[in-house]
Amino acid sequence: MAQTGSNDTVKLLGSWSSPFALRGRVALHLKSVEYEYIEEADVLNSKSELLLKSNPIHKKVPVLIHGDVSICESLNIVQYVDEAWPSKPSILPSDPKDRATARFWAHFVDGKCFESIDAAAGAKDDAGRIAAAGSLMECLAALEEAYEKSNKGGDFFGGQNIGYVDIACGAILGPLSVIEAFSGVKFLSPETTPGLVQWAERFRAHEAVKPYMPTVAEFIEFAKQKFNV
Amino acid sequence: MAQTGSNDTVKLLGSWSSPFALRGRVALHLKSVEYEYIEEADVLNSKSELLLKSNPIHKKVPVLIHGDVSICESLNIVQYVDEAWPSKPSILPSDPKDRATARFWAHFVDGKCFESIDAAAGAKDDAGRIAAAGSLMECLAALEEAYEKSNKGGDFFGGQNIGYVDIACGAILGPLSVIEAFSGVKFLSPETTPGLVQWAERFRAHEAVKPYMPTVAEFIEFAKQKFNV
Repeated sequence: MAQTGSNDTVKLLGSWSSPFALRGRVALHLKSVEYEYIEEADVLNSKSELLLKSNPIHKKVPVLIHGDVSICESLNIVQYVDEAWPSKPSILPSDPKDRATARFWAHFVDGKCFESIDAAAGAKDDAGRIAAAGSLMECLAALEEAYEKSNKGGDFFGGQNIGYVDIACGAILGPLSVIEAFSGVKFLSPETTPGLVQWAERFRAHEAVKPYMPTVAEFIEFAKQKFNV
Repeated sequence: MAQTGSNDTVKLLGSWSSPFALRGRVALHLKSVEYEYIEEADVLNSKSELLLKSNPIHKKVPVLIHGDVSICESLNIVQYVDEAWPSKPSILPSDPKDRATARFWAHFVDGKCFESIDAAAGAKDDAGRIAAAGSLMECLAALEEAYEKSNKGGDFFGGQNIGYVDIACGAILGPLSVIEAFSGVKFLSPETTPGLVQWAERFRAHEAVKPYMPTVAEFIEFAKQKFNV
């Protein structure tokens, strides 16, 4: 049964190809929140009035519109969903130290990891590609170690259930598959990141993720349009 | 009287010149947490063993060491302090929507604001300086608007008391004063940002801030060493 924090309507403005919008959808699904999903029609070429009005600072999806309040930034949305619909399952852990650790790794994903992904995607020459690949490998090695330390024998970073770090990390899977396809380099492999390989498979197959996660082929097709290749 | 979330010892590894370490000190002061402050001795030229061990990913101050757990990243530390010592005063607001708004602006400070500050500090020519100054002015105009909307007639972003956004924004005051001194441009002025000018004065003078906030002259002297000018 749907849980709602209030009677206000809930809308999520997203884009099917956005790894950040995916986070909002997964969080809302985990909490069984009923919401209207609004696809930002032409995310590559123009921005809708609704997007410009609801996220005037960054002008980016996702935006969660709850009643008359707009919540922007995907990790902020996930934390908001966890707090506005506080019944189980919790997305963030309850212990302050575990919460701080979860926030650290989520911040790491949006910082160093996505910087490396952006550098790899935008590299203009071999030297740039090699440097970006090296940085990305280091990030994934750090995440592999964090995964081994944090999952306590469970299937996810959050243990038995998908949690905040899973939702944060899930955003790298699409971009990573595109970079792997274009570069021919396997960044997630059983040799270097055995835990993450298994985690990624479970994450993609999870019922709160599967309906919203594009296929690798769809990600690649979108990247070809975006980068005009 | 000191409040402690547990009997574990609390240490903050910081640097007097770090606007991010300042955040940790202000948060701990607000919660009356007893802690040992450890100054990272030579932040410009070398990193201590304790820093490398407690923040192996980013190797940066501040680090909060609570018992055997290290908490890294300044905004993460502030949220942790709020959650680990939950008695009043609260640093984040209690309403989920207000919390999301506070997190949005804190993220804005560490994103767009500090990108503009770094660009202004690192600009190599007039074109770079003008572009960075324009971007910084836009950021401050956005913060001015946020301040006017959020303070509800109080003295701070958090209303009557210093809160999460105040602590986040407080970190820009030092770097901003250095950029103003070097460029001769007044970024915070009664004409363009009247609310922020008054806010900054109150923030600097607050008893949880004043003992830890370097003077403008000290910031400028440090910047001269850092940039070797």
